[in-house]
Amino acid sequence: MNAMLFSTPALSQPRYVQMATRMAELIDSGAFQPGQRLPSVRDTAAQEGVSISTAMQAFRWLEDRGLAHAKPKAGYFVLKHRQRIALPLVGRPPTHSVPVEQRSRTDVIRREGHQAIQVNLGGYCPRDSQLFDEDRVRVAVARADRVHRRTLVEYSNEAGTQALQNAVAQRALHLGCSLRGEDVVITSSCMQAISLCLMAVTRPGDVVALESPTFFGFLDLLESLNLRVVEIPSHPRTGLSLPALQLALDTQPIKAVLAVPTLSNPLGAIMPLAEKKALVRLLAQYRVPLIEDVVFNDLLASDERRRAVKAFDQDGSVMVCGSFSKTISPGVRLGWVEAGRWKEQVVTLKRVQGAATNEVMEHALADLLTQSAYESQMRRLSATMKARLQEARRLVSAHFPKGTRVSDPPAGYTLWVELPAALDSMRLFEMAAAEGITFGPGPLFSATDRYAHCLRLSFSGAWGDAEKKALSRLGQMANALLEGRPAP
Amino acid sequence: MNAMLFSTPALSQPRYVQMATRMAELIDSGAFQPGQRLPSVRDTAAQEGVSISTAMQAFRWLEDRGLAHAKPKAGYFVLKHRQRIALPLVGRPPTHSVPVEQRSRTDVIRREGHQAIQVNLGGYCPRDSQLFDEDRVRVAVARADRVHRRTLVEYSNEAGTQALQNAVAQRALHLGCSLRGEDVVITSSCMQAISLCLMAVTRPGDVVALESPTFFGFLDLLESLNLRVVEIPSHPRTGLSLPALQLALDTQPIKAVLAVPTLSNPLGAIMPLAEKKALVRLLAQYRVPLIEDVVFNDLLASDERRRAVKAFDQDGSVMVCGSFSKTISPGVRLGWVEAGRWKEQVVTLKRVQGAATNEVMEHALADLLTQSAYESQMRRLSATMKARLQEARRLVSAHFPKGTRVSDPPAGYTLWVELPAALDSMRLFEMAAAEGITFGPGPLFSATDRYAHCLRLSFSGAWGDAEKKALSRLGQMANALLEGRPAP
Repeated sequence: MNAMLFSTPALSQPRYVQMATRMAELIDSGAFQPGQRLPSVRDTAAQEGVSISTAMQAFRWLEDRGLAHAKPKAGYFVLKHRQRIALPLVGRPPTHSVPVEQRSRTDVIRREGHQAIQVNLGGYCPRDSQLFDEDRVRVAVARADRVHRRTLVEYSNEAGTQALQNAVAQRALHLGCSLRGEDVVITSSCMQAISLCLMAVTRPGDVVALESPTFFGFLDLLESLNLRVVEIPSHPRTGLSLPALQLALDTQPIKAVLAVPTLSNPLGAIMPLAEKKALVRLLAQYRVPLIEDVVFNDLLASDERRRAVKAFDQDGSVMVCGSFSKTISPGVRLGWVEAGRWKEQVVTLKRVQGAATNEVMEHALADLLTQSAYESQMRRLSATMKARLQEARRLVSAHFPKGTRVSDPPAGYTLWVELPAALDSMRLFEMAAAEGITFGPGPLFSATDRYAHCLRLSFSGAWGDAEKKALSRLGQMANALLEGRPAP
Repeated sequence: MNAMLFSTPALSQPRYVQMATRMAELIDSGAFQPGQRLPSVRDTAAQEGVSISTAMQAFRWLEDRGLAHAKPKAGYFVLKHRQRIALPLVGRPPTHSVPVEQRSRTDVIRREGHQAIQVNLGGYCPRDSQLFDEDRVRVAVARADRVHRRTLVEYSNEAGTQALQNAVAQRALHLGCSLRGEDVVITSSCMQAISLCLMAVTRPGDVVALESPTFFGFLDLLESLNLRVVEIPSHPRTGLSLPALQLALDTQPIKAVLAVPTLSNPLGAIMPLAEKKALVRLLAQYRVPLIEDVVFNDLLASDERRRAVKAFDQDGSVMVCGSFSKTISPGVRLGWVEAGRWKEQVVTLKRVQGAATNEVMEHALADLLTQSAYESQMRRLSATMKARLQEARRLVSAHFPKGTRVSDPPAGYTLWVELPAALDSMRLFEMAAAEGITFGPGPLFSATDRYAHCLRLSFSGAWGDAEKKALSRLGQMANALLEGRPAP
């Protein structure tokens, strides 16, 4: 089933990704053991009938994902400390859309979550200064307040401050997008940008396609707009399944696709470039707009891997939405959207619904985005998070029940954990909450019940002994639940 | 017709307002001439069979509205420079609701408005520092940035910062409202607060009652939410007609009333306290929520005149929305709402639609609201605007065509001008735009065509020779249009 979903000739991946994916599966399955030497680049090239440089690309892909590492003059080796824990499975394509009735379950979780939390592995909750440069942001705001004080007693430009529009357009070059500053609309958050896009292209009752599993915030948003959802299976490494999407487009009246093609949430998948390109072609064929969330793209090191689907958009059918809350400052609370053909509608909605933004903060953010330190900050942030994610993955592997599967994202803030099917993650959530530990139970990430045995762990908050102990404690509780005995 | 609408016994005004309104009509009609002495307080009390203090209240009401002034030991006199220009007429109650199809006309006006504007009498566009204390705001932001820098690298509290919630609740005491800080939800603007309230209590296709004429922003908002409107006639002094509203409630499936009971826009009317109280009773009877906009209340000097309808709310049926963009800082871009029974829905909508707010700005605003200078700033701002409005009213009276009627607001930013019925304010708008002058043409202020001969003048921007000349020029153009000759 999966093999079919991910290898139709019409929408195939580049050769090197196909090769690397097969090798990754061999590593994940244990066919290649930790520390073992992989076949040489030269041999692999000969065997597959590709050039040396194509084979090199495949090995670099493995290296980027923390599956292998190069030893000088000795070749590539499977990473030693790598766990042999498998990736989550990919679901089946949906046969119909469903209404979103999320609020009730989200509210349960929010209430529980408000009990005295000691360890927060639930939402995005940066609480230390390890991840972001507090002082740099403070200084930028102080400067903007001085230089642009006049804006405090004027009414703001409705689309946004030119300085920030241009800074966003400049940064988007690294996503492969040539945006015009004047087409960028500044919002209070990426979610607001997405909300305005959805309002521009849908009416209540319409169907929207999402990745599955998906960010619960998208489901909450769809519910608030009375939209129906069709959930498209997504691979933990390569994201949205295009054949499954095509099937859905053929059978459902889909009005828009909302996706995070680069470092999806919660999986951390990245669609290969060829698939990003194919997605644009596919949606053009069905005349369905894409709302693309690029909040995580800058956490990747190379422009090639950062490249947005929007980079392949020819006719303004992709509405690209971002913010810098996951990269520069969680507290500035500004986002943006280049809404392609729907720009006027989005600007109008922003204005008439009173989604005003503060110009001093816009100037401060423009300043932060154009500082030369930006890329080195991204590298530091990515390295910190990568180390956390790898350490957390090892802990899950060591303590969670046999048969647990875990995503293996190359960057970002989250791990997606698939426990044995018998486990009820809401029960686990309640047990954990009673001990002051919180996480994202699986049912949040779908409008269906398919993820009742899954959970999302988020590592944006504190990361110390308490958090690491909490992971092993969660594993104990999960084992106890599966064995039908009280947690020790 | 009007008399009937404004004097049903069930919903009557207090005695002193009835007396003052009659005297105001005599002054407006010229029965009392500018400079003429009014009957003494004692005689008036005897004649009307009321106490001296009730008669005094009536005279103070006239004084507050700039109709009369007291001379020590000589009594009350009609203001000398007062024009004998009449108030706008009140329309008839509507027989049915209409859909809002505003965007097309708003867009025409926005496009015209973007031609090189030299004199902006159109929207709210503070552009000098006469009205607001730029330095005070800048310093508050700088302080908040220093003290609350930590918030820049954290994710914000979803309802708002406690300091601002409490500051808003404290200020609301002056509106006669006892709000709990924790029930106040901070938004990006008053319009966003209203937008969230409408989303909480309506579904697309529902009918909402507005004052007539109404703020065009409300019509734009209703259109974006696919709501229908029923427009309730409003008196230029006393606002929303309760009998007309009751008639509409009896005949239309109204789901919410959205109103500015204190200093309505564009009329600048203030509902008398007894009518504010009666409005709450009336809506309770029909189980229809009120969304009350209080952005202008603080521009009035006394707590009694500022008092919100919300002050009379017993059971959380009034959703009160405000901001400080018209009083403290147009650029901070923060608003608030106490949504009564719909608090949870409004907080959820704020969160899921990504309407995030910046905590540094929230702390800065909290600081500004609790400074002891607040009231003196309000007095200065009110005095500045009152002088502008009176000067503008004199200019309109002197230069506009015979038969022109003008509102007479005691405070605020706008005048509502009713020209002879033959005048087409869109034609006037185009002529004026060609000379770099802009204003708000009447059709913007209704979803119907009833105000084709009206216009709104707004005085929040610059106020100098250019603006004063522009008023006389508008008068010349209007005269030329009526006489069917080209403007001189």
